[in-house]
Amino acid sequence: MPINQITVIGTGHIGGSFALAIRSGGFRGTIVGCDRPEVLQAAQVRGAIDSGIADPRMAVRGSDVVLLATPIGAIIDMIERIGPLLPPDTLLTDTGSTKLQIVERARAVFGQSAGQRFLPGHPMAGKERSGIEQATPDLFDGAYWIFTPIDQRLHARSGEYMELVETTGARSITMDPARHDTVCAWTSHLPQMVATALGSALLEEMGDDRQALGLKSRGLREMTRTAASPYSVWRDIALTNADNLQPALLRLEQHLAHLRENLKTRELEQAFERANEMRRRLERSNE
Amino acid sequence: MPINQITVIGTGHIGGSFALAIRSGGFRGTIVGCDRPEVLQAAQVRGAIDSGIADPRMAVRGSDVVLLATPIGAIIDMIERIGPLLPPDTLLTDTGSTKLQIVERARAVFGQSAGQRFLPGHPMAGKERSGIEQATPDLFDGAYWIFTPIDQRLHARSGEYMELVETTGARSITMDPARHDTVCAWTSHLPQMVATALGSALLEEMGDDRQALGLKSRGLREMTRTAASPYSVWRDIALTNADNLQPALLRLEQHLAHLRENLKTRELEQAFERANEMRRRLERSNE
Repeated sequence: MPINQITVIGTGHIGGSFALAIRSGGFRGTIVGCDRPEVLQAAQVRGAIDSGIADPRMAVRGSDVVLLATPIGAIIDMIERIGPLLPPDTLLTDTGSTKLQIVERARAVFGQSAGQRFLPGHPMAGKERSGIEQATPDLFDGAYWIFTPIDQRLHARSGEYMELVETTGARSITMDPARHDTVCAWTSHLPQMVATALGSALLEEMGDDRQALGLKSRGLREMTRTAASPYSVWRDIALTNADNLQPALLRLEQHLAHLRENLKTRELEQAFERANEMRRRLERSNE
Repeated sequence: MPINQITVIGTGHIGGSFALAIRSGGFRGTIVGCDRPEVLQAAQVRGAIDSGIADPRMAVRGSDVVLLATPIGAIIDMIERIGPLLPPDTLLTDTGSTKLQIVERARAVFGQSAGQRFLPGHPMAGKERSGIEQATPDLFDGAYWIFTPIDQRLHARSGEYMELVETTGARSITMDPARHDTVCAWTSHLPQMVATALGSALLEEMGDDRQALGLKSRGLREMTRTAASPYSVWRDIALTNADNLQPALLRLEQHLAHLRENLKTRELEQAFERANEMRRRLERSNE
């Protein structure tokens, strides 16, 4: 079942980049965008979409795939608003950075056929930016696009859609939704919160010290790059993954306290050795 | 007073890179290295030094400048061992990453003339590596080399030495020693401890999960790059700057706890806005 028309709801940084990426990857069908009028205009100027329709109920008409690429809260609302209007041969999918609450809503809306109607997806890219202005066709190149199927029965267009996703340069993998949220809490959401906390603390302590900030400490620049991430992107991630993120933050606080209490003992060496080992494993895994 | 001969005590990553850098910057005098025999041999093979002498008392003979480029503990010991042997027209200087305890030892050894005998220095570079094998002549290019003079009276060769330092591509600035240690606790030592704590916590929680580590989260990779830093370099930094690093770590723990308790409130927005503002100021300061 070929994909002739796709509707992207939310044509900002992720949705806009996806549209640009599949276009440059050779997709010849129609791309309909759905967003606020000024965003749609910008997306059309960028060549991301063929047409823009502000009303999602109109925008989904005739599409084989509907991709929800809004913040998570709006994805959850949209499943409820749009889901029941879609014919069963339209595949509904998304790009939300947390999956469990999205899957729960899909189950509530679609019942027994949730797995066949909705394919949850999460591209691991771009969470430090927002807006169509910064959309780019190579955003997903080399990144993982995680799918968290609700059950074994998939929509007949799932295969074609996964192939389309891979034309962006992304590598698709599948994972259980609950495991996805735990893994992302540790590997993506915790690092963001650390950068935010470090940036916030530094502003209070050193924010007015131009000489200190100008020292070009590479460590500081790296450790706070994502401190520039917008709240608008992260609000819903924090809200919908708090159950995993809270214990992760608490564990990190405990590790920091342990370092603080052991700056002059050999316990510090143990911590450096664990961190060194972690880094070696990370490098091996990313080869 | 030109510099015709310089002794570098500790020809590892920092000392070896300095020797390579001044050589490639046009220094035509003699460079004597002092380290363990196998390190001296490697430094000579790399072309970093003209000759190597394992005994520091012998290695400093006839040099106009003696640069202590060992870990901080050994710098402090060396000031005591070598300082009294040096004629007053030899400038003693160092590369230690903390300055207050080093300055205190120089005052104890040299008394009233400490400022004229010893020029404390700190190149802001390379603390994630160790060893002559990774030494490189461009290590200091674009980095700050902070000097923390003990008082207003400087050694007559200080000007020439600062000019020599700038041939490495480093920019020299001066700072009060106590202020240096506070500023570096926040902008350099805290970011390292955060990377170490994050790496250590991740090893315990996710260390055996190859799929999770392989997800190529850019945030995770960036936030743990310096988790590979060697304990051998950081032990003495933590030991000699614990008084500044402890309160910095405690403040960060408080900011993390505040985030953890406010994942679902608008307080999270305030934290993101502070972090965004911090990042803007950092970018402006680094232009």
